[in-house]
Amino acid sequence: MKQINGSICAPQGFTAAGVHAGIRKNSDKLDLTVIYSQVPAVSAGVFTTNQVKAAPITLTMAHLKHEGLVQAVVVNSGNANACTGPLGMQHTEQMAKTVAKALHLSPQRVAVASTGVIGVTLPIDKITQGIELAIVNLGDKGEDAAKAIMTTDTFAKQIAIEMQIDGKTVRIGGIAKGSGMIHPNMATMLGFITTDAVISQSALHYALIKANQRSFNMITVDGDSSTNDMVLAMANGLAKNTIIQASDDPNWDIFYQGLLFVCTYLAKEIVKDGEGATKLIEVQVSGAASEEDAQIAARTVCRSPLVKTAVFGEDANWGRIACALGASGADFNSEQLRIELDGLLLFENGSPLLFDEAVAKKILQQKNILIKAHLGKGQSNATAWGCDLTYDYIKINASYRS
Amino acid sequence: MKQINGSICAPQGFTAAGVHAGIRKNSDKLDLTVIYSQVPAVSAGVFTTNQVKAAPITLTMAHLKHEGLVQAVVVNSGNANACTGPLGMQHTEQMAKTVAKALHLSPQRVAVASTGVIGVTLPIDKITQGIELAIVNLGDKGEDAAKAIMTTDTFAKQIAIEMQIDGKTVRIGGIAKGSGMIHPNMATMLGFITTDAVISQSALHYALIKANQRSFNMITVDGDSSTNDMVLAMANGLAKNTIIQASDDPNWDIFYQGLLFVCTYLAKEIVKDGEGATKLIEVQVSGAASEEDAQIAARTVCRSPLVKTAVFGEDANWGRIACALGASGADFNSEQLRIELDGLLLFENGSPLLFDEAVAKKILQQKNILIKAHLGKGQSNATAWGCDLTYDYIKINASYRS
Repeated sequence: MKQINGSICAPQGFTAAGVHAGIRKNSDKLDLTVIYSQVPAVSAGVFTTNQVKAAPITLTMAHLKHEGLVQAVVVNSGNANACTGPLGMQHTEQMAKTVAKALHLSPQRVAVASTGVIGVTLPIDKITQGIELAIVNLGDKGEDAAKAIMTTDTFAKQIAIEMQIDGKTVRIGGIAKGSGMIHPNMATMLGFITTDAVISQSALHYALIKANQRSFNMITVDGDSSTNDMVLAMANGLAKNTIIQASDDPNWDIFYQGLLFVCTYLAKEIVKDGEGATKLIEVQVSGAASEEDAQIAARTVCRSPLVKTAVFGEDANWGRIACALGASGADFNSEQLRIELDGLLLFENGSPLLFDEAVAKKILQQKNILIKAHLGKGQSNATAWGCDLTYDYIKINASYRS
Repeated sequence: MKQINGSICAPQGFTAAGVHAGIRKNSDKLDLTVIYSQVPAVSAGVFTTNQVKAAPITLTMAHLKHEGLVQAVVVNSGNANACTGPLGMQHTEQMAKTVAKALHLSPQRVAVASTGVIGVTLPIDKITQGIELAIVNLGDKGEDAAKAIMTTDTFAKQIAIEMQIDGKTVRIGGIAKGSGMIHPNMATMLGFITTDAVISQSALHYALIKANQRSFNMITVDGDSSTNDMVLAMANGLAKNTIIQASDDPNWDIFYQGLLFVCTYLAKEIVKDGEGATKLIEVQVSGAASEEDAQIAARTVCRSPLVKTAVFGEDANWGRIACALGASGADFNSEQLRIELDGLLLFENGSPLLFDEAVAKKILQQKNILIKAHLGKGQSNATAWGCDLTYDYIKINASYRS
């Protein structure tokens, strides 16, 4: 497996476009993306567990259930089309139909996603015009597509990899956006992954669920799970490898490792670009009684506002890490707990250790902060990623609508 | 029931003192409190559910289990004595013994509490000197006691009430402190409640658990449950009412309502003084399928950084409220959801309503913000309290240790 240039258009048969539809007032930002596969793609998705689901989530879940095939995706930013009632559902259906008509597809082979402010009616005329413009412009434009799905993101998130599966070159590409309301509880934010692998829907779905659980589900910016979270994977089969039917196929693991790499890369890009973030925090929990315990412990540390502000302030206040671990619900005894900051041991066997504050300060001045906690209970481990909490998070979110 | 002047020294037989022991470097703040009852008091406590428990939590839980009687409480601020190993436990025992010796009590009748930075060894010599000073100064000094338990609090939190129970005047007084690491999961922060009521330990314990669940457990500042949370209630019986044996005694409810009033008052004082807070947020959830659902929904809205920053920014971004409700785990359907901001209807029957932004802005410019959500599922309701998230929260917490 190796990383290559490009993103969602790197696998064979995929094109994309990102255009300016004018969804936001007074902005010339790209705000509408279309992704297209020249043949129908076996597809799988993971979606928000929020009880309040945006219209495009409901529609795309229904479309995927129909045949499990997607040939085009349309995404708008600037408006979530959530809490918008029956009109919102009509609008999301109209988006699918507009794409379907222009590309001569069944509307059920179109996935729709939206991101932005909640509770505001979509400017549907601008969006349908934008869709037509995007379709005329379809090409090798993964970067435009990545830019057009951004909201408060400050940079586009994209990656592509290449690997060999029984003598065939298989590629996976992905784009994603954050960067607030990020605390996945199943799926998270928006992510679109393309591949030319030949794989069954069940094998693809299982790979996506598993990769998602260890990547997007392990990041947190602010602990809020959105109404619009969606990660969609499309496999159009143009690489012509022998089909990967199920997860016990040896080639499934090669594919899964590639998918996990892509998802993890994009997940980390999202937290690096968390609203107002200046530092990436990686929390590795080991010695947990179960993987669930390890995950909840790692995520709780990443989520703690007190840990996040301490990292921002470059203050080695490790007691807050111990406190967050203890509040997480993971089973452990503080007598067996060990806490390290990038190799610097801070707490062991229930007692604090003397450490050199200057060394700790130097570690905390880095951009990437590694926190390790060993719970002393078992063999399971997990890694979570988060970011610091800064003045700019407040600034961005105190005036998001205006 | 009526509110009266004073706090923990208002009930008969209680004295207190708050002194400067010098626990913090370069500070002349009061930092050590002793509370004393002239006779042993039937006592009950609720304690943090954090797996990492500070030494004073462990000690006080053990002392309460012994006979359920407390005659003196010692509290230091500036140092949590948490994650401090066997030495921390020795220190907390030494605090109890020093109080016991000076007041001629059994050490098991002394409760100990600590609050402040985690993982730093207590300056035990200063503390024992402080205890001796406090005991010499015992008197009608509830306000000093309330001040000496403060950490980042900006004002002292105290209250006293008076009521009649079978012809006798019964008083309840309380003090509490916040104001960061506030997201109780059982007990919360530090609260000390005194009363001269005659009540059995089981009736007192049940009243405290129930009142705590509807007051301190319904506030959140930043979602972090501390290692040191404790609320302790002491009833010394000097009011000479007929003993309240159990919760089916008609006088139990009179006592409980008084206790709930005291706890709710102190809880709201804590969130008003949340770190960096400029506004109090009250979230009333009704129409929930169960009280648990109502509580989790109300608390999740209070906890959401996106709701908190929107309130700080005086932005009627109600979609964040819908999103937080949906992510809370409470059972409801957005088609039946109704959201109001202080009487202004924003969302109903799954659709957004047109509202006057100027009216919304005026509401949000107030100091107390009332959010109402009706889930349309059942008959249960709950109220939670929180505060906005501001630049000053970051400022306070990015440099807490230094």
